Amino acid sequence: MATDPTLNPHPDRLLPAAASVRPIARRLYQAVRDLPIISPHGHVDPHILADDTPFTDPTALFVQPDHYVTRLLHAGGISLDRLGVGQGPLPEDRARDVWRLLFANWRLLAGTPVRYWLETELADVFGVTARPSAATADDVYDQVAAQLAAPTHRPRALLDRFRIAFLATTDDPADTLDAHAALAADPAVTARIVPTFRPDRYLEPARPDWAAAVEKLGAGTYHEYLAALEDRRRHFAAHGAVSTDHSHADAIAEPLDAADAARIFDRARTGRATETETTAFRRHMICEMARMSCDDGLVMTLHPAIHRNHHPATHAAYGPDTGHDIPTTVEFTRALQPLLARYGTHPNLHLVLFTTDATTYRREIAPLAGFYPSVYAGVPWWFLDNPSAIRDFQRAVTEIAGFARLSGFIDDTRAFCSIPARHDMARRLDAGHLAELVAAHRLDEDEAADILTGLTSTQPRHVFKL
Amino acid sequence: MATDPTLNPHPDRLLPAAASVRPIARRLYQAVRDLPIISPHGHVDPHILADDTPFTDPTALFVQPDHYVTRLLHAGGISLDRLGVGQGPLPEDRARDVWRLLFANWRLLAGTPVRYWLETELADVFGVTARPSAATADDVYDQVAAQLAAPTHRPRALLDRFRIAFLATTDDPADTLDAHAALAADPAVTARIVPTFRPDRYLEPARPDWAAAVEKLGAGTYHEYLAALEDRRRHFAAHGAVSTDHSHADAIAEPLDAADAARIFDRARTGRATETETTAFRRHMICEMARMSCDDGLVMTLHPAIHRNHHPATHAAYGPDTGHDIPTTVEFTRALQPLLARYGTHPNLHLVLFTTDATTYRREIAPLAGFYPSVYAGVPWWFLDNPSAIRDFQRAVTEIAGFARLSGFIDDTRAFCSIPARHDMARRLDAGHLAELVAAHRLDEDEAADILTGLTSTQPRHVFKL
Amino acid sequence: MATDPTLNPHPDRLLPAAASVRPIARRLYQAVRDLPIISPHGHVDPHILADDTPFTDPTALFVQPDHYVTRLLHAGGISLDRLGVGQGPLPEDRARDVWRLLFANWRLLAGTPVRYWLETELADVFGVTARPSAATADDVYDQVAAQLAAPTHRPRALLDRFRIAFLATTDDPADTLDAHAALAADPAVTARIVPTFRPDRYLEPARPDWAAAVEKLGAGTYHEYLAALEDRRRHFAAHGAVSTDHSHADAIAEPLDAADAARIFDRARTGRATETETTAFRRHMICEMARMSCDDGLVMTLHPAIHRNHHPATHAAYGPDTGHDIPTTVEFTRALQPLLARYGTHPNLHLVLFTTDATTYRREIAPLAGFYPSVYAGVPWWFLDNPSAIRDFQRAVTEIAGFARLSGFIDDTRAFCSIPARHDMARRLDAGHLAELVAAHRLDEDEAADILTGLTSTQPRHVFKL
Repeated sequence: MATDPTLNPHPDRLLPAAASVRPIARRLYQAVRDLPIISPHGHVDPHILADDTPFTDPTALFVQPDHYVTRLLHAGGISLDRLGVGQGPLPEDRARDVWRLLFANWRLLAGTPVRYWLETELADVFGVTARPSAATADDVYDQVAAQLAAPTHRPRALLDRFRIAFLATTDDPADTLDAHAALAADPAVTARIVPTFRPDRYLEPARPDWAAAVEKLGAGTYHEYLAALEDRRRHFAAHGAVSTDHSHADAIAEPLDAADAARIFDRARTGRATETETTAFRRHMICEMARMSCDDGLVMTLHPAIHRNHHPATHAAYGPDTGHDIPTTVEFTRALQPLLARYGTHPNLHLVLFTTDATTYRREIAPLAGFYPSVYAGVPWWFLDNPSAIRDFQRAVTEIAGFARLSGFIDDTRAFCSIPARHDMARRLDAGHLAELVAAHRLDEDEAADILTGLTSTQPRHVFKL
Repeated sequence: MATDPTLNPHPDRLLPAAASVRPIARRLYQAVRDLPIISPHGHVDPHILADDTPFTDPTALFVQPDHYVTRLLHAGGISLDRLGVGQGPLPEDRARDVWRLLFANWRLLAGTPVRYWLETELADVFGVTARPSAATADDVYDQVAAQLAAPTHRPRALLDRFRIAFLATTDDPADTLDAHAALAADPAVTARIVPTFRPDRYLEPARPDWAAAVEKLGAGTYHEYLAALEDRRRHFAAHGAVSTDHSHADAIAEPLDAADAARIFDRARTGRATETETTAFRRHMICEMARMSCDDGLVMTLHPAIHRNHHPATHAAYGPDTGHDIPTTVEFTRALQPLLARYGTHPNLHLVLFTTDATTYRREIAPLAGFYPSVYAGVPWWFLDNPSAIRDFQRAVTEIAGFARLSGFIDDTRAFCSIPARHDMARRLDAGHLAELVAAHRLDEDEAADILTGLTSTQPRHVFKL
Repeated sequence: MATDPTLNPHPDRLLPAAASVRPIARRLYQAVRDLPIISPHGHVDPHILADDTPFTDPTALFVQPDHYVTRLLHAGGISLDRLGVGQGPLPEDRARDVWRLLFANWRLLAGTPVRYWLETELADVFGVTARPSAATADDVYDQVAAQLAAPTHRPRALLDRFRIAFLATTDDPADTLDAHAALAADPAVTARIVPTFRPDRYLEPARPDWAAAVEKLGAGTYHEYLAALEDRRRHFAAHGAVSTDHSHADAIAEPLDAADAARIFDRARTGRATETETTAFRRHMICEMARMSCDDGLVMTLHPAIHRNHHPATHAAYGPDTGHDIPTTVEFTRALQPLLARYGTHPNLHLVLFTTDATTYRREIAPLAGFYPSVYAGVPWWFLDNPSAIRDFQRAVTEIAGFARLSGFIDDTRAFCSIPARHDMARRLDAGHLAELVAAHRLDEDEAADILTGLTSTQPRHVFKL
């Protein structure tokens, strides 16, 4: 091992290694490297941008809220308690202890995109040059902490520095959207920051909090409930929202008769609906959401088939989004047929399909996106947001559906500082994929360059109707 | 962009890019490039060869009947109506308009094999040198149209030029096979052109046209029905058929008692069979087809698990095979066990398994083909007939079952002019795969060359008993 | 073809071909090439080591007992009878005939790891330099047979020569483990050779031999049965066992109330349990095995979802393990949730998940191993133990879960002489994978070297608690 290893992200990282391909990839990448970032789906809290308060400390920024990081440390035998998960900002000695744990266990992250993003962030955003290890933990902590206190590293300064042109957050339908209103009204904010309508808990009568959620909508009947959802969607659209986001246990969309839906709604309100009924209602409501999208034009994104909160004890102690949401199988072809039979060629519908079951790309998503003008293949999501899965996706989907049916890159992150690293990774991998097509004489280089600019800029603007 | 881009397929296209591999691939490919084409399964209409009438126009040849092309344009927002789907030969101005649409939207095809085939056909068969675009649409249309009117580009001339030695079509069991008889009787036709027995609608009592189909067979009872199917198979064999082809919703083959089968047959004839019964009957009949194959030696090809006519409005307006048949999951191991338990080691049975669910290659198809002497792994089909899926297939199947268990390339196309481009793509990809094994010192180059000749010539002749 | 082809395994075989990657891979591989072999799961018969009797002949060593080899020859049309399957040592003329069949059909193995292993064994263990073919069969037979008779090629001599430091066999819970006791007591045996507790048939009341197995345990009641299993586990642990191994039709682990379990046990003992009950009992017992592992610390390995003895006629004639065990679909996320909810964070549990359904790596196994400290991703098993599947596994799992969540290489073989070839293949492929990460600037070479040493040495020692 070198005596003094440095953190020095290589300019050619992630590009294909073959000498006949890398120069092409490098040229393609250079042309899009500095284009503005369009982030049409993610989980940044809009209040950090509205308030522009400094991030408190490196651990609160990089570790505690990021289940990508904490799950890997947890798998390595470090309890979530020691990592400060769910404990809010920690006293400095504890924050520093957590940071030391992260750095001492850096090997647990080797080979993952999590490490890749963190290293890129440390190097590019904070100028860190020491390779993370137990020996360098304190110095790097100090270096990052000092910068977080400076105006250069407040959220809005980073927003500008990251060249983020568009950023969508994820919001509860009952949200007042005051943070978004404040951001929109502030002339100092040049990025467009908009909410996303995320109604999951309003659509699943099986959830314990459904009745309360419906109560909040002020809906006593099924028809009031539909009207209230339509009204909230209008409220979101008025605040700039371009899409609705849906994550349920499966992708099935199966309409009910209005009378049956109303009957289940009434039974669910009084806790008498069976599991069969609540499931049927949820699947019906996905069709209703598609109908409303045809009316109001909001793009619809589907992120199905994650087994949420797999480990009950962890959920009880630390809450949701703590690293044990686990993917399972999903099916789209049969599941979405009733919805697509009704709305699949409607000119107002844009339906973006995400998956964590990579088998569906070739088998279902690409063939659907390769026929229905409404369907787009969502780029690799969550557990698939890594180089090898992205390469498999690129090959699988574009050969069946072409490049025009891709959503463009989606970061879907709550880790604000990772946004540029993630988009940069996507651009590098897209450049690498296209360079391989050029090297195999399947595209001319000028065509590849046009496609890459499209994937980075025009395609997400088109798909998300910006 | 270059000012005057040309269409100039590179001699090394699709070969591996690495400098240590490409020369090997080139040598391997050269040795098989010009071998005759064996096409044991496809959808060319035999009448175009029997009648040898000129193709009417470029749009009727390349666009209207090819759902590979029209689905991508449809996904890009161009209605099937504008593309002339299902409208037969168009007046020249309309045909030219469709052609312009195709060329103006060439970018929708980028990265797909559809574009690759079309470009190869335009360059190799019609000598086109201009890159397709809105600007070049009319010139290319004129260039192609002029040649289509010439004797050099009539169907039989192309058949010879393409070096097609064997071509199987796909035919209804009730077909008289007069076109095949005419072709066989014509000494000017040197290629062997044979029918394929495709009995799907005769085996599925759930189809609305089943009763009429059975009527056409003149079968009043279950035993007459079996006898009639056996008789039609003999008729096909007498006209040169080497295989039967089957495409149902799943791969399940489950025998019934003859008495139960006869009972369901009777109930289905009078429209009283339940869905459970009609499904059971269809699965039983797949076993019966295998039994008949053991008797008459016809090869059996299975192409299961496509959700046909996914978009009802499109089906109603334009009919079947219009781009919205969508794959779904399939299972072979349990599904075929009853059939293989009975006939899996029968010396007369050749059972070729195709899939559009690529997960089944490693998990089911290769292990089955790696034990049962009757089972062959059908090469990538339909949505998988693209370079990346073919490479995944090659690696997945040959490492488990060896090269001797592959079917050899199947084009399965109704696009006559694409046949040489498709076979050439397969030869290039096979050469590339084998070159990588040589470069990794897993095969010697002489062995790789023997295997490639086998895949191109001897293997399909053996599997399809030519 | 060269006139006199030789068998000469290339020093760079299986390493990446690209000139920018191969030298890195070569350096990484060199550093681990000669490390001792740790084999924590396999099927070598301990008696061959305890007795150290010479192997009888080349065919008995390489062909008859190895269903990897015989299934490929069977698929090529050679009956298992001709191959001497299940017939024990053959007279010399028949053994030689089988050997000639293997060599004459060498092409059937081209591209498979079976051929790769056999060639490596012939070259490295027996010094064979002639390429296998009909022409060389007799000479090679003589060459191998002569060495098998020599002290240099007796089992223990090979054990030392192979540098096997640890070897686990697979054993019936009722086994006395006398061979293991003898090996442990023998100071001449420096390798650690231990049993593995494999209780499948004791846990599946649906098996015809279950009642007799339970009888053998001396268990009249459910509680005696649990106590007897715990006792036999202690017996195994006392003989050095480090793990239990489980292979059932699915991965479902679902606990029953003790009273329900006891009731089903009683009904099953008298042949009255329904299929639903026996399945529920088996799934319950997997939870009980996990509970016992938390108590006694034995590592638990799961190898689910193989359809055993797919071809009944072959099973009837030749018995189990004769090449027609065929994988099918499996699901882990929902299946293991009840078990992991109870024991997933228990410090004593190590649960290694193997699969032959490669789709589960990205979708289920890596996400589970990337959260639960008890869960490890078992390396590619059985039909996936080939270069392409291993490369897919490496990429899929390590990007999600890191390198620390891998089991380390498992050979799982009954072919004793193939052990070094298999471990060497794994080291080459690991080196190649890591070299690609270095070439893509995702790891520094010193980190890659550390990881490779870990995968080869420390990781299997940690996971299997050696």
